[in-house]
Amino acid sequence: MPALKRLSTSDADFSVRLDALLAFENAQNSAVEQTVAAILDDVRTRGDAAVLHYTRDFDRLSANALAELELPRATWMQALAALPGEQRTALETAARRVREYHEHQPLQSWQYEEPGRTEEDGAVFLGQKVTPLDRVGLYVPGGKAAYPSSVLMNAIPAKVAGVGELIMVVPTPGGERNPLVLAAAALAGVDRMFTIGGAQAIGALAYGTETVPRVDKIVGPGNAYVAAAKRRVFGRVGIDMVAGPSEILIVCDGQTDPDWIAMDLFSQAEHDELAQAMLLCPDLGYLDRVAASIERLLPAMPRRDTIFAALENRGALIAVRDLEEACELVNRIAPEHLELAVTDADIWVDRIRHAGAIFIGAYACEALGDYCAGPNHVLPTSGSARFSSPLGVYDFQKRSSLIRVSPAAARTLGEVAATLADGEGLAAHAASARYRVKG
Amino acid sequence: MPALKRLSTSDADFSVRLDALLAFENAQNSAVEQTVAAILDDVRTRGDAAVLHYTRDFDRLSANALAELELPRATWMQALAALPGEQRTALETAARRVREYHEHQPLQSWQYEEPGRTEEDGAVFLGQKVTPLDRVGLYVPGGKAAYPSSVLMNAIPAKVAGVGELIMVVPTPGGERNPLVLAAAALAGVDRMFTIGGAQAIGALAYGTETVPRVDKIVGPGNAYVAAAKRRVFGRVGIDMVAGPSEILIVCDGQTDPDWIAMDLFSQAEHDELAQAMLLCPDLGYLDRVAASIERLLPAMPRRDTIFAALENRGALIAVRDLEEACELVNRIAPEHLELAVTDADIWVDRIRHAGAIFIGAYACEALGDYCAGPNHVLPTSGSARFSSPLGVYDFQKRSSLIRVSPAAARTLGEVAATLADGEGLAAHAASARYRVKG
Repeated sequence: MPALKRLSTSDADFSVRLDALLAFENAQNSAVEQTVAAILDDVRTRGDAAVLHYTRDFDRLSANALAELELPRATWMQALAALPGEQRTALETAARRVREYHEHQPLQSWQYEEPGRTEEDGAVFLGQKVTPLDRVGLYVPGGKAAYPSSVLMNAIPAKVAGVGELIMVVPTPGGERNPLVLAAAALAGVDRMFTIGGAQAIGALAYGTETVPRVDKIVGPGNAYVAAAKRRVFGRVGIDMVAGPSEILIVCDGQTDPDWIAMDLFSQAEHDELAQAMLLCPDLGYLDRVAASIERLLPAMPRRDTIFAALENRGALIAVRDLEEACELVNRIAPEHLELAVTDADIWVDRIRHAGAIFIGAYACEALGDYCAGPNHVLPTSGSARFSSPLGVYDFQKRSSLIRVSPAAARTLGEVAATLADGEGLAAHAASARYRVKG
Repeated sequence: MPALKRLSTSDADFSVRLDALLAFENAQNSAVEQTVAAILDDVRTRGDAAVLHYTRDFDRLSANALAELELPRATWMQALAALPGEQRTALETAARRVREYHEHQPLQSWQYEEPGRTEEDGAVFLGQKVTPLDRVGLYVPGGKAAYPSSVLMNAIPAKVAGVGELIMVVPTPGGERNPLVLAAAALAGVDRMFTIGGAQAIGALAYGTETVPRVDKIVGPGNAYVAAAKRRVFGRVGIDMVAGPSEILIVCDGQTDPDWIAMDLFSQAEHDELAQAMLLCPDLGYLDRVAASIERLLPAMPRRDTIFAALENRGALIAVRDLEEACELVNRIAPEHLELAVTDADIWVDRIRHAGAIFIGAYACEALGDYCAGPNHVLPTSGSARFSSPLGVYDFQKRSSLIRVSPAAARTLGEVAATLADGEGLAAHAASARYRVKG
């Protein structure tokens, strides 16, 4: 049984202990950063040759030309066709539901014309035009952390946004491919796929090489090298968030089968020894019952060692005064996943300001959201739900402001702009505006 | 007369020369980074005391307590009241117009209920809830780059979004305050103001100190130290883009007074010796006329040295085959500001995919947009309009996914999720979903 921390908001040192539990720094390792900087420079300078070099060294995969590492669509389609029926149906259902949900998200262009309050004001036309990104790179990890669900969650919003070309990179160490990942790519609308990975793949996407086209944004999870490379090319290309370990916070009023709650905590903890799983409940006896469920259920879990470590490292059962206090704590923690396993859960949703995804009621377990409910499973971690959002179609679109003024409006606005430009000591700005006043 | 580069798309080396012109790297200076890292660590550890220390050293401003560096609202209101009438009216007009435009931007929550295609499917309720950020920090530079317009452009979208508390920091070296900046803060709805700056101010906002409350996001321009500090605290708080030098790209068909175009180029070039001002035109004779206007108008400009340097460093007059080709180049360059000084400009807007702001027609000069047309003047630079957007209300809001499932839907979806979780080897995910299938 893991020594799961027990906290109570009535403890004198509660706040300090909670902060210690939440503390997580995406430490930037300087050895990793130097290695990554060198790889990126090399890829930028030598292009294909550098990517081939690192792929041979790191992934034990040799090729005479980078084009040989492009996996043709026929190969992914075969992987899809070869899936067992139940798996294929499940993957198709998930893809359909994720697509349907994301079709509610696209931003729309908007515009309006001000007639001008007086005739002298003149008409002004203003707005924002929304455009999809031209080309996006999707990083998919190789090995054990290769999740087909992650391919769906990253690729589908990009294609719903209308991204012109979606380039997937996935390392295949020693040539070993994950058929579920290939099948998911086929379903999700990926356009091209290269079996490269690591910082060299991020460099190829960010700078472009003879063979790999340069993209405008790179999304998708990866190890410390991939994360460092993404941080480094940020600005030249867009990137999604650099994610921390996954988290679940459950608020329960004590009316749910404790086995359900224990298993929901496991479902987060099994990801990673640094994953965070916490439960808030006003009923002390219920916290004991969940602890007993954890003890009983854990030994049978295939990933019990990871779960054990995660619960011991960063897990907690927290006694709260009441559900009001629980909601205040939720807002302080700003969890990636929030389960509201409470009666009349809808009422409590209104109290929540900060959470990546809110699972309402005991039937909405996080696992449904991870795979097939529809919403994205790429969510803000480490408290960043205070200021950021789930990955969505809007991450693959951007806006351009639109400004058109009539000659009369240019006169009125030109005077205002010139006065302000004079105040800032920017004479050319003022003169440019005044030409239109006179014009 | 600056040796303004002349390019033509018909030159054999055009593409290489254009790339060289566009090249700009936000070089990350390691001496700056080390200094900033040390300051941030110190602020994080020692709080107020560290901020006071650096403010005394760098800004020659001493205080016994950080609270003394909070500037009370009455002081800003006095600055507003003391403005000359014309300046006050101009600032108020700009604030009103910026607010009206941004009121078109707020994201709205949305939700829908799927009845389920069959009775077994069960109902699923999905959506996204939009919430404003709780607290935002606004960095405003001191000294010559202190622009009241920048206060309006950063503060107003935050307040339109409904941000609870907007904390402005502005260094006042030697105690010198900029009354226009204070007046703009009063008009824009800033909640609190501290006269601190540099990396120490970014640290205070990101970590919080005894006196400065911790914020959720930091926006606003700053020098290399401020930019490095923002990059470093990114993740712990949100940040806006780290901006490169400002840019204008003008497409002209040769029908606009060349003095207007020359002055528009100046209005960008006067910002900074690294600012970029370029003109695309199919009419070679017109390019000569603009060059002549530049030569004639430049000597009278107060900032002629900066303009000269910027035009010589990174300016260009570029001959294109026709307007179609000009639009292709625009999309390749993805400029911060685009002026379409062409007949029937509306038609050409449809060809533009990548630009921060599009000024349609010769009367819509950039200076109007910089101050008072309404759209934001904080725009993506260095080609990042390929993947990012103008600052807006949406940057001060974020989304939480909503998921509620009926018991019947939990059965259907639970089977799908469990199948996929099995495929990924995540047994606790599968078990969590299967509890709901049986439940």
